[in-house]
Amino acid sequence: MKKNLIVGQSGGPTAVINSSLYGVFTTALDTPEIETVYGMVNGIHGFLKNNILNITTDVEKSELELIKTTPGAYLGSCRYKLPENLDDSIYPEAFKKLEEMNIGYFLYIGGNDSMDTVSKMSKYAAKINSDIKFIGIPKTIDNDLVNTDHTPGFGSAAKYVASTVREISMDAAIYATKSVTIVEIMGRHAGWLTAASVLARKSEFDNPVLIYLPEAVFDENAFLKNIEDAFKKYQNLVVCVSEGIHDSNGNFVCENTNDILVDNFGHKILTGCGKHLENLVKNKLGVKVRSIELNVTQRCSSNCLSLTDHLEAANAGKEGVRAAINGETGIMISFKRNSSSPYDISYEYVDVSDVCNKEKCVPSEWITDNGTNISKEFIDYCMPLIQGNVELPQKNGLPVFADLKLHNK
Amino acid sequence: MKKNLIVGQSGGPTAVINSSLYGVFTTALDTPEIETVYGMVNGIHGFLKNNILNITTDVEKSELELIKTTPGAYLGSCRYKLPENLDDSIYPEAFKKLEEMNIGYFLYIGGNDSMDTVSKMSKYAAKINSDIKFIGIPKTIDNDLVNTDHTPGFGSAAKYVASTVREISMDAAIYATKSVTIVEIMGRHAGWLTAASVLARKSEFDNPVLIYLPEAVFDENAFLKNIEDAFKKYQNLVVCVSEGIHDSNGNFVCENTNDILVDNFGHKILTGCGKHLENLVKNKLGVKVRSIELNVTQRCSSNCLSLTDHLEAANAGKEGVRAAINGETGIMISFKRNSSSPYDISYEYVDVSDVCNKEKCVPSEWITDNGTNISKEFIDYCMPLIQGNVELPQKNGLPVFADLKLHNK
Repeated sequence: MKKNLIVGQSGGPTAVINSSLYGVFTTALDTPEIETVYGMVNGIHGFLKNNILNITTDVEKSELELIKTTPGAYLGSCRYKLPENLDDSIYPEAFKKLEEMNIGYFLYIGGNDSMDTVSKMSKYAAKINSDIKFIGIPKTIDNDLVNTDHTPGFGSAAKYVASTVREISMDAAIYATKSVTIVEIMGRHAGWLTAASVLARKSEFDNPVLIYLPEAVFDENAFLKNIEDAFKKYQNLVVCVSEGIHDSNGNFVCENTNDILVDNFGHKILTGCGKHLENLVKNKLGVKVRSIELNVTQRCSSNCLSLTDHLEAANAGKEGVRAAINGETGIMISFKRNSSSPYDISYEYVDVSDVCNKEKCVPSEWITDNGTNISKEFIDYCMPLIQGNVELPQKNGLPVFADLKLHNK
Repeated sequence: MKKNLIVGQSGGPTAVINSSLYGVFTTALDTPEIETVYGMVNGIHGFLKNNILNITTDVEKSELELIKTTPGAYLGSCRYKLPENLDDSIYPEAFKKLEEMNIGYFLYIGGNDSMDTVSKMSKYAAKINSDIKFIGIPKTIDNDLVNTDHTPGFGSAAKYVASTVREISMDAAIYATKSVTIVEIMGRHAGWLTAASVLARKSEFDNPVLIYLPEAVFDENAFLKNIEDAFKKYQNLVVCVSEGIHDSNGNFVCENTNDILVDNFGHKILTGCGKHLENLVKNKLGVKVRSIELNVTQRCSSNCLSLTDHLEAANAGKEGVRAAINGETGIMISFKRNSSSPYDISYEYVDVSDVCNKEKCVPSEWITDNGTNISKEFIDYCMPLIQGNVELPQKNGLPVFADLKLHNK
């Protein structure tokens, strides 16, 4: 008897999380062993509340094509952690629903928290001898999943960061006055995306002149000294910092205890580390300074998609369906790099329990110049991931997106 | 005897200020009446310090082509106001330099402050019977120059804002939780660019659900009421605000006197109106809220250029050279709209003294729903300006830019 497939999205979106969904949808709809394709609306959380979409009957072919380049999570997302205790009543409830829907294949697109869901569901399946297959499809702009060369979503975010920091550097250089421009980039614990700002340099001696990752301890005095030293060679400095930079005690710079801001309600205001460092430079060095937080555009910009990332994301979805059909379970699709030049990867399966709840950081030997620069090894690693452009469907001069299934109804 | 031409850029850059420069350069280099083409490095301020570039001899053809799509100001910029008093010694000094360099044509690309420079120089020329021609080429993302239908730079910035707010709206809609996303857009006194966020809507009832321009008085209580009302229809709200919104006394929201933040140096911190409103919504309504400041990417993003804007900017430069050769002086190139559908403009000359130091605001009748929405008239006005895409030269997956002439040497 044919089985049905259900897929969900979880965690923060990337610019290509829907490319993976497209890969799952199109492959599953084309797979004879699969009867009906369902989507969980708002991930496992929505699934538990019966918030389910029938993709086979309810999504038009033209809509499917649009999904490929649509930012956000087409099916909606959630941040929901399943209980650690497999004896919790939520598991039999979930599996009852899955059985009722004749689900044979459960695919989940997300980062390390989402892989935790895949891990727990597959463990519970083993416990009750269910033959439902649970597969994880990786996704995160942070690139912090272990046991994979990189993650879908990182390449496009890295291309956006590199391209935007290059533009900001042009903008910052126009006045004949000393200036510092601080760019705050996403990444609380892993600095991959901030490291990608090194690609913005047009030549060896170019902006960004200083790059700070959360993998290295951040010291404010050293930072001010670095700025003063850089002014000996450059007039307009662009400095990239990860949102997660912290001191040797692990205190985030954005939560610097000497610098708590309180609004008129008496509540603490977090201004971000970029804003904090802007004030530090202004007060200590007295030069013109500006801070720019790249914010969510890093993960939702569709004008700067990497074709490589876009295709790999779709392939990860396709490989997820194939793995499930082939009887795999409790695995995540992983990228193995065979060569950087020419760039070549293969798709493999790794145990999802080895991936979840872990974080892969930038290797310390790739962080150079006392924690202010990035090595050539990183550039060689990252460069292939940002190659190629994706043409977006457009109407009236603006990109056309699919309607998210839960969009403000 | 043939004369030379000198051109400068002034004020904040736009994504197409260099397209205008390209228009000036290529037209001037091709004009038989012009001997040598010079560039002022850092505008009139650099010119007065002899910071001058010989474009005819020192800029390669390949570099010229790159200038067309390079962000920032290729020649560097300045914020320098000439003295009001035409008896000031700066004027004879400047004209002595111009005469020594055999300048017959002085072109200046900039906003209303820059037009002030053109106005004063042309008035001084009249006073001393100099036959040097002074021409202004308009430029500003703010679109606030009078006596022109619109300004080069606005179309690309508007396209970036509309496209980015559409992406942010997709990103903001993914969780099954009520949320507010506040997007802060440039424009201190004129709300044209913030108004362009209306184009982000994919249908009539879509985000951004509320749009606030500086042309209307901003009231925090009304704002909170608007948010609560919008929650009756929408779950995830995107709200666009101009950086220049202010109360009925003219106090900027970002400088709200009840909400001054002081850092550990005892100095006032300006957090921006987006951050201020984020805290207001969090404290008063207790819902999930985030603020995003689009910042300088609005004026330097090269991934989202409007072809219409790009071509018009280059044409404005070309028309500026022609006007000078034809004996015009003390004028700015202006756009006259003949028709919106099909879109058609012609280039005219307006008296630069009527343009400088004035601001054109969004007409009050285009601001609807008690200052929270934008009319169809604005959409019809703005839509033609964002049409068409510009392909950028790329290398290694990133845009290739010309080297700014003063770039960190």
